[in-house]
Amino acid sequence: MSVTPSSYSITMRLYTEPDFAVVGTVATTIAEAGGITTAMDVAESRHDRLVLDVTCSATDSDHSERLVQAVEAIAGVQVHKVSDRTFLLHLGGKIQVTSKVPLKNRDDLAMAYTPGVGRVSMALAQHPEDVAKLTIKGNSVAVVTDGSAVLGLGNIGPGAALPVMEGKAALFKRFADIDAWPICLASQDVDEIVRAVEMIAPGFGGINLEDIAAPRCFEIEARLRESLDIPVFHDDQHGTAIVVLAALHNALRVVRKSLSGTRIVVAGGGAAGSAIVALLLADGAEDVVVWDREGLLSADDESLPPAKRQLASITNPRGIRGTLHDGLKGADVFIGVSGPGVLDPEWIQDMAEGAVVFALANPDPEVDPAEAAKHAAVVASGRSDYPNQINNVLAFPGVFRGLLDARASQVTIDMLLRAAHAIAAVVTDEELHASFIIPSVFHPDVPGAVASAIRGTPQE
Amino acid sequence: MSVTPSSYSITMRLYTEPDFAVVGTVATTIAEAGGITTAMDVAESRHDRLVLDVTCSATDSDHSERLVQAVEAIAGVQVHKVSDRTFLLHLGGKIQVTSKVPLKNRDDLAMAYTPGVGRVSMALAQHPEDVAKLTIKGNSVAVVTDGSAVLGLGNIGPGAALPVMEGKAALFKRFADIDAWPICLASQDVDEIVRAVEMIAPGFGGINLEDIAAPRCFEIEARLRESLDIPVFHDDQHGTAIVVLAALHNALRVVRKSLSGTRIVVAGGGAAGSAIVALLLADGAEDVVVWDREGLLSADDESLPPAKRQLASITNPRGIRGTLHDGLKGADVFIGVSGPGVLDPEWIQDMAEGAVVFALANPDPEVDPAEAAKHAAVVASGRSDYPNQINNVLAFPGVFRGLLDARASQVTIDMLLRAAHAIAAVVTDEELHASFIIPSVFHPDVPGAVASAIRGTPQE
Repeated sequence: MSVTPSSYSITMRLYTEPDFAVVGTVATTIAEAGGITTAMDVAESRHDRLVLDVTCSATDSDHSERLVQAVEAIAGVQVHKVSDRTFLLHLGGKIQVTSKVPLKNRDDLAMAYTPGVGRVSMALAQHPEDVAKLTIKGNSVAVVTDGSAVLGLGNIGPGAALPVMEGKAALFKRFADIDAWPICLASQDVDEIVRAVEMIAPGFGGINLEDIAAPRCFEIEARLRESLDIPVFHDDQHGTAIVVLAALHNALRVVRKSLSGTRIVVAGGGAAGSAIVALLLADGAEDVVVWDREGLLSADDESLPPAKRQLASITNPRGIRGTLHDGLKGADVFIGVSGPGVLDPEWIQDMAEGAVVFALANPDPEVDPAEAAKHAAVVASGRSDYPNQINNVLAFPGVFRGLLDARASQVTIDMLLRAAHAIAAVVTDEELHASFIIPSVFHPDVPGAVASAIRGTPQE
Repeated sequence: MSVTPSSYSITMRLYTEPDFAVVGTVATTIAEAGGITTAMDVAESRHDRLVLDVTCSATDSDHSERLVQAVEAIAGVQVHKVSDRTFLLHLGGKIQVTSKVPLKNRDDLAMAYTPGVGRVSMALAQHPEDVAKLTIKGNSVAVVTDGSAVLGLGNIGPGAALPVMEGKAALFKRFADIDAWPICLASQDVDEIVRAVEMIAPGFGGINLEDIAAPRCFEIEARLRESLDIPVFHDDQHGTAIVVLAALHNALRVVRKSLSGTRIVVAGGGAAGSAIVALLLADGAEDVVVWDREGLLSADDESLPPAKRQLASITNPRGIRGTLHDGLKGADVFIGVSGPGVLDPEWIQDMAEGAVVFALANPDPEVDPAEAAKHAAVVASGRSDYPNQINNVLAFPGVFRGLLDARASQVTIDMLLRAAHAIAAVVTDEELHASFIIPSVFHPDVPGAVASAIRGTPQE
């Protein structure tokens, strides 16, 4: 397995004998233990010792510890301190608020603050339609969570969710020049969450719901869409659905199948799964079957809970029941947004020719992408260490850029479809390949293409 | 009256005959009409015309209009467009969110966002006490308003209040390197405001309540102080009280009186007045009388509403009743936080020798500072165009800097007193003068001195 660099990167401060040969020994030792040395600085060189700062990458926390132990075992080397680069990066938070206007002298103050600001406020009181133009509202998004379903970590609460929301805010700026602020809520009650978001809405141009557990997230989003005059977007649902649909379009280009003619199995009927199903159907898919812990969801199964029942009612036209393996027989596409290891790679052999497998569970996918690739024509996952990473970063910055530019009050399913098609279209026919169905998150054309698709206007 | 520059500054685009002599004529015309030309740019010079951008300052909106009319009246000059510099400055908002960490490549992303951030979130779930250290919470303040008492503009609502809150956030950064974000609430109901602030509190290190009307603000602050584990500070109350007390200390240094021996009349028993009274009493003042629309507040007046009754019960030891004029007879200090023109300058003659007059109503003070100065020994106001401006900017940045540095969970009255004394002490004996009782908001020592006083530790 390849190494995901930096994320598990550590810096060791070493005290060694005053012999520069040790530098080579340390690098060799780290390499032999499977690590990658990315930086080696001599911090101090004295007659009696050297101080070395060695930065290296590991595959996971256990691996980092083994690297430290291997270095400690070198004769004449003492590990003084181990710093985790990811934690160091988080010290003091990842985002900041800065002033866009000068505040150097009294004149500056008199315009940006009292008394000048009073005239602007008075004008806005008379013309509320200008608030977005003359304030940050026109470019700001609240990244709202209750901390109930954070990444693959589960219900870790609002405080522990904050680093994720900050990261999201940083990405909003990086990819779409949007000013996003994390709002981590102290309650997981639907009524309280809805009311809190309604309360803070006047200062924001859009609401990005994030990492809120299903089925609570459905009601929260639906109620906020009803009550607010700014767009509400649950990234775990719609952001994921957009990128999955984009990737699927290109995967089908690779295997030369049409969406309407393919049989699709979606594993996981939660937030992401429901949104993916809705977008697939809106785009013309006709045979979608959802599998979850209850088995294949079917409208004639009266034992299903309400949300699953609803999902069953719009899917599974052939009314099949059974296990995931049963559902996969003859299917063209597997889309997993469920849990680790639910897909046995052998079952892929029972799928139709040119099988497409998206194993998106995080951090551990439904099936090892390398195993799946032995039987499937196209494989994608959520991981950055395999080809075809399905990453929401491809969607949400451009989506909100488009919504804010258009001063949109709603997100429509047509917008989501257009965004998915725009991402897919960034991959040219020449570039398209089973291992390249989705552009890199750093592809410079993506945010603009998505924003333009959301606005429904030609790209600026 | 002197001109407050920039705040009423306009830029006119002029089309003129192709004769550079017109530049001089325009400047002279503006000067004759009482304006100040601060910039004159030739935007275009053609054989048939000049395009001139002229920026000039006026005293108020009417004056700006008169300047435009005067320029329009010049032969051969056509005013093409008039832009208001204050409004131009507000376009797109005054603050932004930026990333403090690099997001240039996949490694950066893997540390700041998934998968790296997951390890930080997991660590915080296990050690919630580290949230402030590893997130923006350790340096962030929510600037919360319901838009019910914005500046002197009244109940203009949350949207129109946003420019003021943004200005405040910009000042937080400028003066104390704090990351503040405006939270403009969609309701003016006490329960809803309290709950909304409780809900968003996990992501912030402090709450700055702003421009919330009395008496609602008292209950909101008290309840939030009870329920939250981060400091809550209502700037209109405590920020104002700190700066007023600092200025009063220095005014009394000028007139050589002691706080305990002075008779003080506070005009206005609202948010600011109540907080000023509390701080005066905590600092040793013994004879404070509050005047409001009910007259001089006295504990034996059973017709008073509850908040005023409470205020009366801790003030007015001589139990006097009557008008503001009655209260001022023999008083040493007048502190006005009420409304325009309530103090007849003649009444100051009936105050004690060495009278101190603070006329702080905004934008129009209780008495014209120039008129007051004819009879009073020391005069202060909220205006930047007179000496001794009482400006909250002197207090709130340093207050929150100190609170965040100390990871304080509460604001105590001792902290407020120390902050006031620290601001007063910035003015040295050599500098102290009836026209210089309070440092400039740009005095570089102020935020650090206040922060250190709040922390209760020697200045860093």
